[in-house]
Amino acid sequence: MALIHYPVLNRQGEKICSAITNLDIHDIARVSATYGIEAFFVVTPLKEQQELAKRVIAHWLKGAGARFNPDRKEAFLKVKLEDTLSDVIKKISSDCVHPLVLATSARRWKGCISWEDIEKIVQKNENECILLVFGTASGLHEECLKETDGIICPIEGGTGYNHLSVRSAVAITLDRISRFRRQ
Amino acid sequence: MALIHYPVLNRQGEKICSAITNLDIHDIARVSATYGIEAFFVVTPLKEQQELAKRVIAHWLKGAGARFNPDRKEAFLKVKLEDTLSDVIKKISSDCVHPLVLATSARRWKGCISWEDIEKIVQKNENECILLVFGTASGLHEECLKETDGIICPIEGGTGYNHLSVRSAVAITLDRISRFRRQ
Repeated sequence: MALIHYPVLNRQGEKICSAITNLDIHDIARVSATYGIEAFFVVTPLKEQQELAKRVIAHWLKGAGARFNPDRKEAFLKVKLEDTLSDVIKKISSDCVHPLVLATSARRWKGCISWEDIEKIVQKNENECILLVFGTASGLHEECLKETDGIICPIEGGTGYNHLSVRSAVAITLDRISRFRRQ
Repeated sequence: MALIHYPVLNRQGEKICSAITNLDIHDIARVSATYGIEAFFVVTPLKEQQELAKRVIAHWLKGAGARFNPDRKEAFLKVKLEDTLSDVIKKISSDCVHPLVLATSARRWKGCISWEDIEKIVQKNENECILLVFGTASGLHEECLKETDGIICPIEGGTGYNHLSVRSAVAITLDRISRFRRQ
């Protein structure tokens, strides 16, 4: 999976680069380890932000964090840094066949893939790579969506309220897809 | 649902009172609004911590936060403060019949209720109150577990890695239970 910090939208719908959030990395790395995700790509083109993320990762992989909390180390082994979504896709394509790239969104895009269809797709592609793409801030910019093979319909809880944190959205999405895989 | 800050365990298994985490309230309030949870109880006996939480809640309900982000206001309407789990159960019992109180744990307790059985229980109790209890820090103290009607088996992702943040655990649990209710 990939967590995109650029290009994403702000609340006004403008293209921005969001800042890396320490807690996103922790929570999502732990979810990734729980569900056996191959890699969790943190995507930002800003070198200063990458340096910051590298320091956090090193703390938990080799620093005091690794001694204090070995479970967190296991989770942080999943975390990789890349400049762009294209780079992530290229990276994965060198390991397996071109992955099926699925974007997530809190917005109901025309032609979005229903969760019922995602279930079928996941079961049909059991041994193939799937790359799940999540946006920070107010979601993925269209430039990013264009690079994907489809957009999954929003997570709905039956209320119409549609403002989950990206941390919660990742947890729910991976739990659902993991269930589809095991069925 | 209730998020317990006392009595919970630290990493050494000792009884502690954990500090309220601002982001827990935000993430869990948003998940609660998504799935139409009646109330999200933040439980701590520490008055200073309750005052802090009240200031945060007021900011999003009436302060600058309410104007800046009305969606967050809707989520914060779910947040209530109580001193103890007993108080939460008493409160709910005054509104409906005594709720079915289910604890969650990352530990596989003897006699824990499997997710398959939770599905059956939720479907059988469609119109009854269920109170889901989550622990902060390293999980609920036995004193708390004793007040519940049962403990749900841990969330598993097929890897044996079992260290989700409470934010992720809440998101996944509510998504699963909401699915059971709708089936």
